Amino acid sequence: MSESTATRAYDAVLRHVEESLRSGAIKLGDRLPGERALAEQFGISRASVRHAIRSLEVMGVVRSATGSGPNSGTIVVSNPSSALGGALRMHVASHQLPLKDVVEARIMTETWALEHAAAAPWTLEQIDDARRLLEAMDDEGLPSEIFTLLDSQFHVALSALAGNVVVSTMMESMREAIRDYISDAAARQGSWEEVAQVLRAHHHRIFEAVEARDGALAARLVREHIDWFYGRAV
Amino acid sequence: MSESTATRAYDAVLRHVEESLRSGAIKLGDRLPGERALAEQFGISRASVRHAIRSLEVMGVVRSATGSGPNSGTIVVSNPSSALGGALRMHVASHQLPLKDVVEARIMTETWALEHAAAAPWTLEQIDDARRLLEAMDDEGLPSEIFTLLDSQFHVALSALAGNVVVSTMMESMREAIRDYISDAAARQGSWEEVAQVLRAHHHRIFEAVEARDGALAARLVREHIDWFYGRAV
Repeated sequence: MSESTATRAYDAVLRHVEESLRSGAIKLGDRLPGERALAEQFGISRASVRHAIRSLEVMGVVRSATGSGPNSGTIVVSNPSSALGGALRMHVASHQLPLKDVVEARIMTETWALEHAAAAPWTLEQIDDARRLLEAMDDEGLPSEIFTLLDSQFHVALSALAGNVVVSTMMESMREAIRDYISDAAARQGSWEEVAQVLRAHHHRIFEAVEARDGALAARLVREHIDWFYGRAV
Repeated sequence: MSESTATRAYDAVLRHVEESLRSGAIKLGDRLPGERALAEQFGISRASVRHAIRSLEVMGVVRSATGSGPNSGTIVVSNPSSALGGALRMHVASHQLPLKDVVEARIMTETWALEHAAAAPWTLEQIDDARRLLEAMDDEGLPSEIFTLLDSQFHVALSALAGNVVVSTMMESMREAIRDYISDAAARQGSWEEVAQVLRAHHHRIFEAVEARDGALAARLVREHIDWFYGRAV
């Protein structure tokens, strides 16, 4: 099969799924028809259907599982951050997207988010998500991997108060893209306990600025926080 | 084959490619080993290798073409914008990423880019790329599809002066994600010639602000420009 024929074959499935999502004919949690049914519906090979499904999986639009259990089949999910993050990570690895540009873009995104978070109409319940993560990181016995996970969730929860899902998605993607460099950067800052102490102090000040609705201060603090962390990495 | 076995099988190929890109063992323009060779190297099925290659394609990291010509095989490319844009578009279609959040994120990104472009050390040659696109759009006989293409390239060329590849990639991705809504939005603004006249006037003022190194003005104008355009769409 020539490239163009194959492209047309699976593109028809992708376009159909996109249109069905847009119209609401298929929604989050729905199951796509099976491989054989799709192949018949579009008059294409099952290999082309698998090609299309794999594309949707990589885009974070569906999750596939083989077998016959209740969770088997191809289910519509919403996982844009890990999809975009995985792709970004590859391009950082190939040196096409410089690490320093990712860090700069992350600072742009996160300062914007915290400035808007400080002015947004969040509820107490929403800011308490970030507070719980902040307080969990105060535990000095936490292994560094757990701390890093909570750290990541803390940044996401605080930025989410701005109420822009696309900005949050971009932030998470960039964090995912440079995840491997995070532990390298941390290791260069000295002993883990020293690093964790600085991070805790930063996080508390950033949180308090958002809670006090001081957007300019929150933006400045988070910029300094990211700069400090990656200072020697980029 | 259970899901976890399949996942492990192709993940090994993805991790290997990522590591090889990072170390420089494979670079842009290089050809990956054939399907059979990769299957043998990793001790996995050719179906799993295809799965991995397809993932890399969707991420914009490789381009695959069947056949035996000089352009056949799996070649390392760098196409992050269309990869991220394609994924974003799917999530906009599934209503998981609201259109208004994409527009707001685009304004954040583009105001940042033009503010930085106005202060960046670009060469005359670089700004002339944007100027040529600006002047090409002055031709009143252009079909709307050509105008829209030049318009897109103009925004990218101007923002690229800021020198941050990740920010440019994000901008292009978001434009790609809402591409279908652009013509809808344009159609709602009245006759195409009226719309084009307004866009031309905006573009000239934005370009002049960047050229005059007035970052604050360029940022304000581009925000008004995007707001005007999507005003009735979101």
